[in-house]
Amino acid sequence: MHDPVDAIDPGSARSVVRVRVRFYETDLMGIVHHGSYPAYLEVARVEWLRRRGVSYAELARRGLHLAVAELALKYRVPARFDDEIDVEVTLVARRAASIRFEYRLLRVIDGVLLSEGSTLLACVDAHGTVRRVDDEMAEVLGRGEIVPDDRASSMLRPG
Amino acid sequence: MHDPVDAIDPGSARSVVRVRVRFYETDLMGIVHHGSYPAYLEVARVEWLRRRGVSYAELARRGLHLAVAELALKYRVPARFDDEIDVEVTLVARRAASIRFEYRLLRVIDGVLLSEGSTLLACVDAHGTVRRVDDEMAEVLGRGEIVPDDRASSMLRPG
Amino acid sequence: MHDPVDAIDPGSARSVVRVRVRFYETDLMGIVHHGSYPAYLEVARVEWLRRRGVSYAELARRGLHLAVAELALKYRVPARFDDEIDVEVTLVARRAASIRFEYRLLRVIDGVLLSEGSTLLACVDAHGTVRRVDDEMAEVLGRGEIVPDDRASSMLRPG
Amino acid sequence: MHDPVDAIDPGSARSVVRVRVRFYETDLMGIVHHGSYPAYLEVARVEWLRRRGVSYAELARRGLHLAVAELALKYRVPARFDDEIDVEVTLVARRAASIRFEYRLLRVIDGVLLSEGSTLLACVDAHGTVRRVDDEMAEVLGRGEIVPDDRASSMLRPG
Repeated sequence: MHDPVDAIDPGSARSVVRVRVRFYETDLMGIVHHGSYPAYLEVARVEWLRRRGVSYAELARRGLHLAVAELALKYRVPARFDDEIDVEVTLVARRAASIRFEYRLLRVIDGVLLSEGSTLLACVDAHGTVRRVDDEMAEVLGRGEIVPDDRASSMLRPG
Repeated sequence: MHDPVDAIDPGSARSVVRVRVRFYETDLMGIVHHGSYPAYLEVARVEWLRRRGVSYAELARRGLHLAVAELALKYRVPARFDDEIDVEVTLVARRAASIRFEYRLLRVIDGVLLSEGSTLLACVDAHGTVRRVDDEMAEVLGRGEIVPDDRASSMLRPG
Repeated sequence: MHDPVDAIDPGSARSVVRVRVRFYETDLMGIVHHGSYPAYLEVARVEWLRRRGVSYAELARRGLHLAVAELALKYRVPARFDDEIDVEVTLVARRAASIRFEYRLLRVIDGVLLSEGSTLLACVDAHGTVRRVDDEMAEVLGRGEIVPDDRASSMLRPG
Repeated sequence: MHDPVDAIDPGSARSVVRVRVRFYETDLMGIVHHGSYPAYLEVARVEWLRRRGVSYAELARRGLHLAVAELALKYRVPARFDDEIDVEVTLVARRAASIRFEYRLLRVIDGVLLSEGSTLLACVDAHGTVRRVDDEMAEVLGRGEIVPDDRASSMLRPG
């Protein structure tokens, strides 16, 4: 139902997902285009779920989607081609039919905060109708990472 | 069924669709990223159909797709941000379950040939199963542009 | 320098730029991917400037950029392939070294509000260093559209 | 200069780079959009160089680019969201000022060939002028992978 923010265990609600900037994600300013960042957040969310035993692809096949209802990003320091970035993704709120993640993007080489942001995701079915977060999903959202680290890195390696 | 290439009237088989390069389509070399060009071809194909009275969106809703089976592009001269490009798109072959378009991308300001290419499209249903080009579609493919020029530009204006 | 929000003439500060959803901008949910919207805002900003006599491409060649520092989007109703969208883009704040635009995306066919958002843009040079909005640019930002409508549509037609 | 194809040692000229399909790379057909594949080839090329001790980002900073002059792709079986794909990338030809790579994309779970293709890359400087492949680069192109596997996977993990 309306789980307040403080009911979420901060320790278990966070994952760190590494991505590397691709060439096509840059623009003529020589830096990563601002429109490339939503992809990093998305990759991190999908990985956040995977590490809790949930395949978002499987959810989608069953007609359940977490549709982005709100997106906010602040760009601090430009990312550049080939930079490795650690995306810290944290579940910060669970409500009846939506969840909110916050993100911090850190440059791996020196820990500089490049960008931060948040997304509000609405639980919807294949027709776009809003659906309650069911009990099974609620349970998943309360989990910490269950996929052991080495499995995780092996699963992540693909990128 | 197997209409040979020479059965296609070159005059009616060609459309010219104008696009303008978007900022995010560039990369750190300062030019349009090679991976941005398939989008220009796609926009031109959709417009080619529209000018013959066919909404590709409507086809897709009815479960009929023209899936790209082959793509080839040669990059002659780099396009740059904000360039206007005329995409010449020509139907060059119709077969039982596929069609082929060829493309020439010309810079509007001076007519320079930037790029050329082709795509082979397979007719598939919503499950990806190959389907014959039916009679209705075959008729459309043989048409010239039927949407009057001013309608066309009004429809195109959006870009 | 610090022109407050209310110093901006709302009438002259707004432009409406039409775009059409491209196929590749959709995702497997069958709707436009949320990450495709920053492109619509960007196209609208570039067009906003053009209608006031400013080529953003020319600015960029001279080493002046309007870098996105903040991006916020709310997604109300999903856009779909081939939808025509009117992007209302309004300059709402001018400061020493930044400007803010707000956006409303309206589906052309029925006027439904699909999405709304805002971007904060920082004036930076080719090295990413923040620069004051110079007097020439300030003058431009205060203008209404100066490119006559028909010129505008001809310039826009490309899409 | 004109090293013929057969002068390239097939064993050392090949790398296999794993990627995972991202959500935004799909389209409303429910499969990976054909325009997403050039990105996979690009990621694989950059990684191919890295495993031979070359940072493409560093090359670009020094004003040396491998610009795509030709791109060809055949789409056999559609890739889907979250699929892991092994991109086999092989240097097949070295000429005075260009090199050619070929690619095979295999679905990791069952080894099915999804797609195959090739790119011709021209050596150009920051102004887009064609340059000879210099001796240092020629030496690199003749190398096999020198980055040990575990380093490689650690470098790749980011994806």
